[in-house]
Amino acid sequence: MDHAGRQRSLQAALGENKLDAFLVTHLPNVRYLCGFTGSAGALLIRESGATFFTDGRYVAQAREEVSGARIVIVRKAPALAAAESIAALRRRRVAGRLGIEPQAVTVGQREQISAILRGQWKLVSAPPLLERARIVKDKDEIRLIREAIELGAGLFKIARKKIRPGIREVEVAAAMEYQARREGAEGMSFSTIIAAGKRSAMVHGRASEARIPRRGFVVCDFGVILKGYCSDRTRTVHAGSASRIARQMYAAVLEAQQAAIASVGPGVSAAEVDAAARKVLRRHHLARYFTHSTGHGLGLEIHEAPRLAFGQTQRLEAGMVITIEPGAYIPGKQGVRIEDVVVVTSKGCEVLTATDKELIII
Amino acid sequence: MDHAGRQRSLQAALGENKLDAFLVTHLPNVRYLCGFTGSAGALLIRESGATFFTDGRYVAQAREEVSGARIVIVRKAPALAAAESIAALRRRRVAGRLGIEPQAVTVGQREQISAILRGQWKLVSAPPLLERARIVKDKDEIRLIREAIELGAGLFKIARKKIRPGIREVEVAAAMEYQARREGAEGMSFSTIIAAGKRSAMVHGRASEARIPRRGFVVCDFGVILKGYCSDRTRTVHAGSASRIARQMYAAVLEAQQAAIASVGPGVSAAEVDAAARKVLRRHHLARYFTHSTGHGLGLEIHEAPRLAFGQTQRLEAGMVITIEPGAYIPGKQGVRIEDVVVVTSKGCEVLTATDKELIII
Repeated sequence: MDHAGRQRSLQAALGENKLDAFLVTHLPNVRYLCGFTGSAGALLIRESGATFFTDGRYVAQAREEVSGARIVIVRKAPALAAAESIAALRRRRVAGRLGIEPQAVTVGQREQISAILRGQWKLVSAPPLLERARIVKDKDEIRLIREAIELGAGLFKIARKKIRPGIREVEVAAAMEYQARREGAEGMSFSTIIAAGKRSAMVHGRASEARIPRRGFVVCDFGVILKGYCSDRTRTVHAGSASRIARQMYAAVLEAQQAAIASVGPGVSAAEVDAAARKVLRRHHLARYFTHSTGHGLGLEIHEAPRLAFGQTQRLEAGMVITIEPGAYIPGKQGVRIEDVVVVTSKGCEVLTATDKELIII
Repeated sequence: MDHAGRQRSLQAALGENKLDAFLVTHLPNVRYLCGFTGSAGALLIRESGATFFTDGRYVAQAREEVSGARIVIVRKAPALAAAESIAALRRRRVAGRLGIEPQAVTVGQREQISAILRGQWKLVSAPPLLERARIVKDKDEIRLIREAIELGAGLFKIARKKIRPGIREVEVAAAMEYQARREGAEGMSFSTIIAAGKRSAMVHGRASEARIPRRGFVVCDFGVILKGYCSDRTRTVHAGSASRIARQMYAAVLEAQQAAIASVGPGVSAAEVDAAARKVLRRHHLARYFTHSTGHGLGLEIHEAPRLAFGQTQRLEAGMVITIEPGAYIPGKQGVRIEDVVVVTSKGCEVLTATDKELIII
């Protein structure tokens, strides 16, 4: 990972954003910038260099993982220790504007940092510089996302074997998660969704104690975290023979998903990809049952920029990694979602979750 | 669960804290007050009543779960919708001080809420009213914690069976987590720690790809979430025959743990319980290897008030549920931790995690 390069880019952006220092506390951003994977750390970026603060639990780990930054071991919350080091600069008559991440700092933390700075430095909410940087993945990141996705692919095989009428949804999820752990996943990237029968109409149907019915859709939406990077994939299978209406619904969602994938390419806006899926579903009179956005970026976090939704003007660029996941959910009846992860290329996109998407009858 | 009673207590506390309304956004607090278990919700408390805001994904779930509050389904972030409803009161010439939870609201959210209120209401960081209320558990909560702990007890049996020289730590954790899921746990209350051999000296030794050595301690620290409530338990076993030094170290930590448990009772300060453990370890020349606090409260969250540490003046009360978990960690060599959950009673305490604590040789 090019941590030094990432830090340099951020340092270069300080001036144009009128910041004299930037306190990075959102842990995925800390990891992105210097490689630290622990649960307590703050990175202070100034034009003159970077300093990483962590506590005594992470002495060895910080030395092993952190690159491009001086390491300081502290006895208090790392963000507060970083603020103290900033306040201490005052003695050397250095002062200015300290940027914080407004989505990652709580009101309580801000009050504590502010008390430490005593008005000598001005605390400002920084623009989302790291979210913007992270939106385009580099080769190392795409390689790790591929690895996570490969591990995830094996889990769908487990799901196919486990899904049988009468088995509880949670049993299917447990078997998948067990396999993920054994193969080295740090965890799941979100609560595994196994939503069967009427529950398939619930967009967020976390695996429950409900049993797979004899007949009906089973939405399987799952992802792992491997070496910090997330995978995400949804496949919908059908228990028992599928009615004509069910088959039509599945075919419509698949057609919408393929249309959205076909629309992806550099220069295309996030809203256009969303519209491509919605247009197909409208033709099949299913648009009003598609109640969420078409997709999202993923990487160190399961939900990152861009968001593929109505009104989103963000243009796609080569190197962005996004999900394409239209669905249709008829309340109290049934639902279907099909999701792939794709990486935007110079010509269009490459589907990273390439497995068969014909309707599987179990 | 006595949601109505909890809301009434909070309403009664508004006046003395000079609050005209309280916006509760920390989800465990929302759940505590009204029963909602979903991932998006905000509860607005005024003396005249409570209003719960959530989005379209949770229509059915909110109706089923929420008690004591009017339910409003919104299309935006629930906290912002709540702020808008507060701002709308202005038309009826109602204004005042709106309390927010400083540890749960980000700087970015505060800026958005503030923009909505346009200075008509004053935004203030409320004192930790809910953390104070939640510190003493009622009978329903203690029953649920018992259930979670019972499920957790079964996992240690799995660990004992799985732990063998040569097996990876993560395999042990995976088997435990699989069992937890199958028995209905919503998840683990923290990343399962299986730390073997030299890794036993790492306080936060999450299960890794490392293999259990032929000889050495294996620290097993794990908990589940069941019906929203957390369990927590640590047992340290020994692979292969234990040296005299290892046995002495184990015995010292166990003695410290028992001394701390014996010290628990109403009126005793959190610091005194911590001191009871530390005193024993000092006598065994292990005090400097005990590098964390003696315990913490648990309930809807794995770490709650009180904190059993030096300087903590909080007095224990009947109904508090706390962990007692001293340990000793000799860097690069070996570590031991033994942890129980106890509930403070009118006379002392009851150990909820009652299983044998003699050193188990595997």
